[in-house]
Amino acid sequence: MSDLLPSWLESANAPGCPFPLNNLPYGVFSAAGDTPRCGIAIGDRVLDIPALARAGAIEFDPGLFVEPAWNAFMQAGPESWRKLRARLQDLLGANGDPRLRDDKALVETVLVPLDSVKLHAPFRVTEFTDFFASRHHAQNVGALFRDPQNALPPNWLHIPIGYNGRASSVVASGTAIHRPWGQLKAPDADAPVFAPSRRFDIELELGAVIGSPLGGPSSVQEADDAIFGYTLLNDWSARDIQFWEYQPLGPFQAKATATSIGEWIVPKAALEPFRVDAPAREKPLLEYLKEPGPMLYDIDLDIYLRGADGEETRISRTNYRHMYYSAAQQIAHHTACGCPMRIGDLTGSGTISGPTDDSLGCLIEMTKGGREPLVLKDGQPRTFLEDGDTVRLTGAAKRNGIAIGFGNCVGTLLAPLQEPYAR
Amino acid sequence: MSDLLPSWLESANAPGCPFPLNNLPYGVFSAAGDTPRCGIAIGDRVLDIPALARAGAIEFDPGLFVEPAWNAFMQAGPESWRKLRARLQDLLGANGDPRLRDDKALVETVLVPLDSVKLHAPFRVTEFTDFFASRHHAQNVGALFRDPQNALPPNWLHIPIGYNGRASSVVASGTAIHRPWGQLKAPDADAPVFAPSRRFDIELELGAVIGSPLGGPSSVQEADDAIFGYTLLNDWSARDIQFWEYQPLGPFQAKATATSIGEWIVPKAALEPFRVDAPAREKPLLEYLKEPGPMLYDIDLDIYLRGADGEETRISRTNYRHMYYSAAQQIAHHTACGCPMRIGDLTGSGTISGPTDDSLGCLIEMTKGGREPLVLKDGQPRTFLEDGDTVRLTGAAKRNGIAIGFGNCVGTLLAPLQEPYAR
Repeated sequence: MSDLLPSWLESANAPGCPFPLNNLPYGVFSAAGDTPRCGIAIGDRVLDIPALARAGAIEFDPGLFVEPAWNAFMQAGPESWRKLRARLQDLLGANGDPRLRDDKALVETVLVPLDSVKLHAPFRVTEFTDFFASRHHAQNVGALFRDPQNALPPNWLHIPIGYNGRASSVVASGTAIHRPWGQLKAPDADAPVFAPSRRFDIELELGAVIGSPLGGPSSVQEADDAIFGYTLLNDWSARDIQFWEYQPLGPFQAKATATSIGEWIVPKAALEPFRVDAPAREKPLLEYLKEPGPMLYDIDLDIYLRGADGEETRISRTNYRHMYYSAAQQIAHHTACGCPMRIGDLTGSGTISGPTDDSLGCLIEMTKGGREPLVLKDGQPRTFLEDGDTVRLTGAAKRNGIAIGFGNCVGTLLAPLQEPYAR
Repeated sequence: MSDLLPSWLESANAPGCPFPLNNLPYGVFSAAGDTPRCGIAIGDRVLDIPALARAGAIEFDPGLFVEPAWNAFMQAGPESWRKLRARLQDLLGANGDPRLRDDKALVETVLVPLDSVKLHAPFRVTEFTDFFASRHHAQNVGALFRDPQNALPPNWLHIPIGYNGRASSVVASGTAIHRPWGQLKAPDADAPVFAPSRRFDIELELGAVIGSPLGGPSSVQEADDAIFGYTLLNDWSARDIQFWEYQPLGPFQAKATATSIGEWIVPKAALEPFRVDAPAREKPLLEYLKEPGPMLYDIDLDIYLRGADGEETRISRTNYRHMYYSAAQQIAHHTACGCPMRIGDLTGSGTISGPTDDSLGCLIEMTKGGREPLVLKDGQPRTFLEDGDTVRLTGAAKRNGIAIGFGNCVGTLLAPLQEPYAR
């Protein structure tokens, strides 16, 4: 399965193409003037799934694809996920069922050029939970927020630390966001002020999309079975708001301006050949968190930053294999107390930072708390984000010349609203 | 408006009746064998709202009441909320429109005896956010969890501290819950264990139900305008799980077993005569948190506890007026960074503790961290909850002989699941 599955659609076989037949990621797209609908990327095209269902080329109730979101299809269950994937690999495969390939009119209708469409959020987020699960990130940020000698909280090697986020603030890739206002307090100030955040940051994460309901407590294997797929995720974070608000109950407003998700949900099935083991455990895990097999994935992830009139610069390349806890472990832990998980729940991996200076997942780490600016290709320095900056996350699992691509997760930071309470 | 509005339904005029014509709380009920539907309590009856709409006695699209939840009606907007309330006060008033009163068959159909129905959750919870907003509770719990000398976090007098909860774990009054499993670590132990919580607690709170969408940032007045009503709320809390997990990102599994909500949403309109000012501010609030008028309410709130075979004992009487921050302030703060609020969002006031030992909102405070057991009427001692315990919250705003009652919020604690991962 880590060899290329050839398609009669030549663009899907091109070296390095992010959307070969092995991938088939779930998205939502609209063409000029049309309403958004479910689509799957293949080569340089997006396959219009409701149109394919209406044409009878896949045996699925078109009702599953009426809503411009994959939630109804998730609800149909893992057997349906497998069935659609197998049918599409047959229909699009070089040596498969010629039903679509040989019907030029249908090909014209259902295979829409990717460069002509607008992409939307691929699913409706039910609830969103974010984690804190990279050893390197926890160490680096703990040293900046707290005491370098005690950077790692005592529970960190035992618990996949998580906190509930805010689903209402999750936005599609391409959505511009305003720099937030909030309470800020300088360490030497007597009282806080209400002002636009001055230390607005990104967090490169991988989101896991829950496709099957889970009761609690569920095992790591059950949690893994419930994952529909993975998507890029940028958890925008106002570090100055966070620093003042986070004790004792955790981040709240610092993380609620927006969380951007990727254009595509990459099916878990497409990532199977890329599973890797978690790093060696520094302390033994409790039984309920032990993994029945490799639950991390070898996925390269990049962060690009571009100033308003500047040149895009890659500021990090990291890999999801650097995590200490997997999504399956995080979700199992999430249910341990009896908490139910529902279809469309989203979990964020936590910032993904590797061991080196060029593999960090957020600006506060890259700039050592804002003390050491980055320099972009065009010579502009950056500590935290400036108004007009565009951040693009991208990534792919790669092996034997094929790539399972995630597309992009893009967002532009706009200036803060003027005097928000002056209305 | 704080005088009794008389009804031709005599039970609604009885002294101390929690559901006089002044109240009209929103609920969802089912009679024997029927499907759940929207109802409003009046005297010893529940008024079947979809039946009343089908009969043409109220001019509302019956489609608003098809779902067994008040969300669709909330979406109709505040003008509709006012219109239905006014129409019901006319139809049920002693001197109002005789259309219902004089139609004995309709009366029989739509006024169902409260003691014959089952009550369900009154609305679908979109997202749930909990706060930490009683000065007394923050002081008491801060002293137990942290250092008595620094019990109040430095941000507490400036920020209505909140954290996101988990909507999937919100349950209707009457739902029994299992004692959760979780990670526990004794202060002197080397490593945590995975075991049932030994310090399972309650938190008496008042929930605010958001009925209109809010963009961010919204003012305190805009936040108040968006509140549909208030309901009782018990935020079950595993103190031992909480103590070990909560740093640095706040409570997570400790609060996700269940949050019980009350049987009824009391309309904000019914509480208007009971508005009271917040206490004097110890430090000046930032402008965006200042209240345009009194935003707290004078509402007596009681906690009753009963062991499996024991006698029900009132263990606290407190009042919502003891809070430092109001729901309107909390919601305004929630939106300050741009976070959108949606219809059906629920905010918990935070544990409501008064200044005295008999007005505390949770067991950890009442028993001084489990060191000083309560003694129930039947002689049983309690530090934290025991299997089989039933907790009942109730409350009412009272003046001039009338009561605006909240009904009950009940939950029974069951034994933990046996070996949850042995399946």
